[in-house]
Amino acid sequence: MTRLFNDPADFADEATDGFVAANERWVRGVHGGVARSTTSPDGTVAVVIGGGSGHYPAFGGLVGHGLAAGAAMGNLFASPSAQQVTGVAKAAEHGGGVLLSYGNYAGDVLNFDAAARTLEADGIPVRTVRVTDDVTSAPADDRAKRRGIAGDLCVFKVAGAAAERGDDLDTVAAVAERANDRTRSFGVAFSGCSLPGAEEPLFTVPEGRMAVGMGIHGERGIDETDVPTADGLAELLVSRLLDELPDGVALEGQRVVPILNGLGSVKYEELFVVYRSVQRRLADAGVVIVEPEVGELVTSFDMAGVSLTLFWLDDELEELWAAPADTPAYRKGGAVAEQRVDPSTVAADAEGVGIGPATDESRVVAEQVAAGFAAVRAVLDEHADELGRIDAVAGDGDHGIGMQRGSHAADVAAADAVSRGAGAGTVLLVAADAWSDKAGGTSGAIWGAALEALGRVVGDDSRPSGATVAQGVRAATEAVLAFGATVGDKTMVDALVPFDEVLRTRLDAGAALAEAWGDAVRAARQAADATESLVPKMGRARTHADQAVGTADPGALSFALVVETIAP
Amino acid sequence: MTRLFNDPADFADEATDGFVAANERWVRGVHGGVARSTTSPDGTVAVVIGGGSGHYPAFGGLVGHGLAAGAAMGNLFASPSAQQVTGVAKAAEHGGGVLLSYGNYAGDVLNFDAAARTLEADGIPVRTVRVTDDVTSAPADDRAKRRGIAGDLCVFKVAGAAAERGDDLDTVAAVAERANDRTRSFGVAFSGCSLPGAEEPLFTVPEGRMAVGMGIHGERGIDETDVPTADGLAELLVSRLLDELPDGVALEGQRVVPILNGLGSVKYEELFVVYRSVQRRLADAGVVIVEPEVGELVTSFDMAGVSLTLFWLDDELEELWAAPADTPAYRKGGAVAEQRVDPSTVAADAEGVGIGPATDESRVVAEQVAAGFAAVRAVLDEHADELGRIDAVAGDGDHGIGMQRGSHAADVAAADAVSRGAGAGTVLLVAADAWSDKAGGTSGAIWGAALEALGRVVGDDSRPSGATVAQGVRAATEAVLAFGATVGDKTMVDALVPFDEVLRTRLDAGAALAEAWGDAVRAARQAADATESLVPKMGRARTHADQAVGTADPGALSFALVVETIAP
Repeated sequence: MTRLFNDPADFADEATDGFVAANERWVRGVHGGVARSTTSPDGTVAVVIGGGSGHYPAFGGLVGHGLAAGAAMGNLFASPSAQQVTGVAKAAEHGGGVLLSYGNYAGDVLNFDAAARTLEADGIPVRTVRVTDDVTSAPADDRAKRRGIAGDLCVFKVAGAAAERGDDLDTVAAVAERANDRTRSFGVAFSGCSLPGAEEPLFTVPEGRMAVGMGIHGERGIDETDVPTADGLAELLVSRLLDELPDGVALEGQRVVPILNGLGSVKYEELFVVYRSVQRRLADAGVVIVEPEVGELVTSFDMAGVSLTLFWLDDELEELWAAPADTPAYRKGGAVAEQRVDPSTVAADAEGVGIGPATDESRVVAEQVAAGFAAVRAVLDEHADELGRIDAVAGDGDHGIGMQRGSHAADVAAADAVSRGAGAGTVLLVAADAWSDKAGGTSGAIWGAALEALGRVVGDDSRPSGATVAQGVRAATEAVLAFGATVGDKTMVDALVPFDEVLRTRLDAGAALAEAWGDAVRAARQAADATESLVPKMGRARTHADQAVGTADPGALSFALVVETIAP
Repeated sequence: MTRLFNDPADFADEATDGFVAANERWVRGVHGGVARSTTSPDGTVAVVIGGGSGHYPAFGGLVGHGLAAGAAMGNLFASPSAQQVTGVAKAAEHGGGVLLSYGNYAGDVLNFDAAARTLEADGIPVRTVRVTDDVTSAPADDRAKRRGIAGDLCVFKVAGAAAERGDDLDTVAAVAERANDRTRSFGVAFSGCSLPGAEEPLFTVPEGRMAVGMGIHGERGIDETDVPTADGLAELLVSRLLDELPDGVALEGQRVVPILNGLGSVKYEELFVVYRSVQRRLADAGVVIVEPEVGELVTSFDMAGVSLTLFWLDDELEELWAAPADTPAYRKGGAVAEQRVDPSTVAADAEGVGIGPATDESRVVAEQVAAGFAAVRAVLDEHADELGRIDAVAGDGDHGIGMQRGSHAADVAAADAVSRGAGAGTVLLVAADAWSDKAGGTSGAIWGAALEALGRVVGDDSRPSGATVAQGVRAATEAVLAFGATVGDKTMVDALVPFDEVLRTRLDAGAALAEAWGDAVRAARQAADATESLVPKMGRARTHADQAVGTADPGALSFALVVETIAP
């Protein structure tokens, strides 16, 4: 929801003021919106874009060299008035006439057309190109009725580049029209945005559901489905757009710009996960991807949604798409043309842990160790959410995921090492390296060090005795203590140290390994549960200690879970 | 919340894959993260950054010419492992040694330090600069314990620019250290993010409340307050940061880079509204703003939060900040150096409606008209949310805001015109122009046309008779009908036409104006309510008609509200 505003009625104007203040290198405020703050050659065409506010970087963020000459910025989700469009066009034009270009909505058509009449009455030549890329808003044989969404960028960019190279008004209008003819978009949404000061979102979609074909102002879509996986969404988006190719476009070898656009609160990492799959599906279809864009280009406040645009290039459109641009929110063509790294000169990744000779006896133990990692992986999968939640109280909430990642990697590496004939010690070393590499974070480094110490004691020669296990646990404990924590710091050490002590004491007193292990496990669990009463001192220095009182330590808990799961 | 993923355990890796696929112009995937896909001169320093995933554009988005040479990309909110950092550094270095730079978190320190030992053992010189900009995470006299948030960008940018100009490793480390010493950040949050597959957000903040000093992984803040206005938040952020100036910095004339950073779902328009006020407060403090940044630079998935960073420049740091950069998410220094528009050559805005002569009688009526606009403004303020909600069903949800904006502008313009001695007709013309200009959208254009037609009939000479009022309403109705809608299209026309007909019929039958007006108002309201049963045909072509059945038309309703509010 939108939270930061003063008087909601002033929101759009204040946003424009702030936008201009932050971007004076590119834009200046004029009546109705912004125009470039940099000069343009006399006699070139001014591309004037615009629409309602709430879609940043559309529309003001696209004003600058190589793109728009000005943007009429209406109120929230409302077309700019004819006066605004006229004001911006007059401020932006520099002798070559004005191309008005905007997404096709009734209010925009009304006001831009009225402005066009005023401008022409004042002797300024005007052409208009409306963007109609949204395939869900009207049938393919009625494209002129479709609304404009993220495909705006393709049309504006091409028109701006044509204007910048000095094309005359009719030519700029013609390439913009051709870009629109060759641009298709399709979008979905998970939740609506709320306008500043509004008590409710513009619309809601039930949890776990997705509206298909929704517009950028909350207009309902054509269907509602369950939220698919990221790969499933990519399939939906790509297949719908490949179903409607522009005239004269065949897939094989065809060059295309994909734009995967986030509407507001679907974030970059999610977009990249979807794009990974979009790109593969397009490659499978035989097309060649050119300078894609993945990010927020035409938004709808904090609406949770995503759209895919495919812009089917020809030679001239590709040249115009690739041309430099320099605006507040869209920059292309850096100052330095650089050479690309030759992949053949890049060194291969370093080798991991090698598999040395091992006795048959140790290989049998190695299989048990690998089975232990599989069991640990399962139990950590089960508890990952809980561990994350506990960690979120005082830490950064990554403990569950880290333990999961580490144990998954250790499981895979251990199984692989077993299949290659490794002994028990080597399996532990291989798993240690995989755990710390894939888990990352503090816990990854610590578990890696602990498993490595244990593995070095266990070795690849024989079935380890109770005494060897105790010695290995002692070595692992020392490796963990070397990171600096002591008992009472509310870390894994709080459970590890009693575990180590009880295991050793019971074995020294003559207990069998299984019995001693059982006692040590109980001591570890008891200590882990008791961390609730401790104030954390270690590893949480970035938060305020008193807030974490009363919460168990996730590291101690996960340690107890692991040792409860395995029995030597 | 995070919605788009496949197996949550694969999320970070898949996001990195997609990021690389979308940005091959700048980066290539290497073990542990990404390195530049472009070549760098032999013997220059490689700035290697990194941290957990979930903070895009940090960290991979900042790899490219003039910024980082590589980024180690850990799992979600988890430090990259030592192996990852080592892998990226080896892929990225090109003979001048490696500067490791990252936000100061325990897990990162552990793993980057371990990687530094490995790299040095392999003969690669390493220096480390940890970013510690977050003022809320430790006291000012213990800055080394502070965590790093959006100030990362200042340190990375300066280090990358120094490396690019060929500084040696010690010099690059020294300027990065100085940048960190002169960078301070302070943040707030309104809601937490949820990690892929997690059932609950990492943390919650009660509705209407704000956590002060919260970290970028959900770490709790130091305080909780009510959500302030945008101006109030700017005041809070700026005043806290001005309270702790770096050594040797005095305010007057000091050059500073402000970075207003959105954490994920606080959107651009909100950031600009806050920045407007930040910039004023900084100017009031006497400092000079240099190349600010307002946007999403270090995020935390879709967390709703915002932070302000102040980077206090010296001459060398300013030169490095301004240097070109070209990365997936941060580009500076366009291909074309352009001249700025000379403000003195920019034409003033066009004049609005002029105030002509008027009779005293008409001036009395003008005051009543202005009072009418004030009453209309109040009633539309009261109903704006409701009108927006109704409009959201079939349209774009902007009707309430548009009517509010239009009536506010008309009220202000009418009052101003009255104070300048305008007659009733001119007050209507002035209000018409203001309404359509400020409301924008379809309804703004239509109300502007209607009020203008009415004003031309009313004139500035005499108190209008019932017949004149009826004639004015007829002219207004014709002006609206000229936009193309007819009765039954589910637009404002559905209420306007019966209003016009009943008013004229009752006056023709000899009724007094007040009585006829009352009857016309009832007819308008009845017609507006009846629009619920109509299928929309006009102005909603971008949505699917059947969805709007059963919803009253917002334009007809707001018309009824307006005519109910005023009485001639």
